[in-house]
Amino acid sequence: MLDLPGGRLVMSTDSYVVSPLFFPGGDIGSLSVHGTGNDLAMAGARPLYLSAGFILEEGFALADLSRVVRSMAQAARACGVQVVTGDTKVVERGHGDGVFINTAGVGVLPVGVSAPSGERARPGDAVLVSGTLGDHGVAILSQREGLSFETAIVSDSAPLHTLVAELLQVAPDLHVMRDPTRGGLATSLNEIAHQSGVGVRLKEGAIPVQPQVAAACELLGIDPLYVANEGKLIAICAPADADPLLAALRRHPLGQAAAQIGSVVADAANHFVELETTFGGNRILDWLAGEQLPRIC
Amino acid sequence: MLDLPGGRLVMSTDSYVVSPLFFPGGDIGSLSVHGTGNDLAMAGARPLYLSAGFILEEGFALADLSRVVRSMAQAARACGVQVVTGDTKVVERGHGDGVFINTAGVGVLPVGVSAPSGERARPGDAVLVSGTLGDHGVAILSQREGLSFETAIVSDSAPLHTLVAELLQVAPDLHVMRDPTRGGLATSLNEIAHQSGVGVRLKEGAIPVQPQVAAACELLGIDPLYVANEGKLIAICAPADADPLLAALRRHPLGQAAAQIGSVVADAANHFVELETTFGGNRILDWLAGEQLPRIC
Repeated sequence: MLDLPGGRLVMSTDSYVVSPLFFPGGDIGSLSVHGTGNDLAMAGARPLYLSAGFILEEGFALADLSRVVRSMAQAARACGVQVVTGDTKVVERGHGDGVFINTAGVGVLPVGVSAPSGERARPGDAVLVSGTLGDHGVAILSQREGLSFETAIVSDSAPLHTLVAELLQVAPDLHVMRDPTRGGLATSLNEIAHQSGVGVRLKEGAIPVQPQVAAACELLGIDPLYVANEGKLIAICAPADADPLLAALRRHPLGQAAAQIGSVVADAANHFVELETTFGGNRILDWLAGEQLPRIC
Repeated sequence: MLDLPGGRLVMSTDSYVVSPLFFPGGDIGSLSVHGTGNDLAMAGARPLYLSAGFILEEGFALADLSRVVRSMAQAARACGVQVVTGDTKVVERGHGDGVFINTAGVGVLPVGVSAPSGERARPGDAVLVSGTLGDHGVAILSQREGLSFETAIVSDSAPLHTLVAELLQVAPDLHVMRDPTRGGLATSLNEIAHQSGVGVRLKEGAIPVQPQVAAACELLGIDPLYVANEGKLIAICAPADADPLLAALRRHPLGQAAAQIGSVVADAANHFVELETTFGGNRILDWLAGEQLPRIC
């Protein structure tokens, strides 16, 4: 039984089936706290309570379970959320894969905040990202495929709610926030363009991607703009809010590499997300057909 | 973003891995709504919102998914709850089993209701059940093993919140409510005895079990008192509340076979749950060692 401070209730859920369970920069336990907490934060809500449902495969090592649960606990403490209810099921060997975790989160949207929403992007708005793209997905994939690079690629899995709190103080009227997880930046922007009935124009040269991530993507034949992130956000705002928001992002440890990457344009007919390439060409960033990278989160 | 009427927030979660997915009297979809809704109802809360997380195995038939989702929707409408957020993950063939579902539920405990809790059983209290025991588990097991009986055994999967509302009107000070799911009546009563620091004495002859369920249990070598139920509740109350509660139970379609099956006794040392058999002997109903019936819910 839980207290809810004044405000509106926000609820979100995600199941986590990431493979491998442990990866550079995190594991399924911390990911299951950050992922659902970030979904609440993107709606402008302060995450308060989490549920945790475990589906274990018969034979899964208790030592690994303990490591996952400790990681969840640590992530929850760091995020200021409480895991208040849980459940465990066991399935026969060969009918699961180690451990799957579902978390559902409840948060509260403070009174007076006009909730950011995917429907509120307007032509002329600035499109910002909080940092480099593709880190989580490429870290998982490198681990899975046994690839190693000169510079280690580490997941960006992190809780975004303190960053969000700063942003909402600087710009209470922030139009859209979205964490580009599955499907990456391109998919999230296509969703927002559809929801708001607008187009988006991006400048390729302005999009921050770490050199080792770009190199790994080239090697693996994937596009970093479609790769999952677990500690980044897209913010879409009125032009006047862009500079103050960028400054606030860069003041926060999770926003050091923040950048304005483009803007919203009128395109009621097609809702295209277009990329102006570094060579001056144009490329349409379409919806992803199918899943580029399965079990990335 | 959700409205929460005045009261305290209650939250619960359960993952559903029942096999087979479709069984007499229900399926994994309706079960995932009833199960989590009932958990909230047992805390005295009115279920309001559900999350739904699906983990699908590659190759799972879309027609089956559609059947499951329609069943969830129908159950949610019948329960007056809204499924407000969801997620779908796909795992490779051989790493899941058709579909697993997690639901988390949020409900509200009305102001003025003193929440029933497993810690509130007191010596002298009456122990009631709302109907026959073992129906769900035996229905699943019969289906799984391809057994058939002269009279069909059907799961009792049902939403209990309207029944609970009636009970709380008759006895606002109801001490304990519990739905005896995994581990059945015996396990639930052992949990309550431990939480409250008391013992429980049951009369075997007073415990309602359908004849065909008793027969199937004998054939399968299992004890109906340890078998899962999905539409029954245990109520523990002050002696003066017992008769009005039994009358209220029997007025409701889900409480026709309600009965007082025993009472709470002082046993601070052992917290024993004892059964006075129909032959006048005594038997201790111990905790279940391991899982009698895997994947029953």
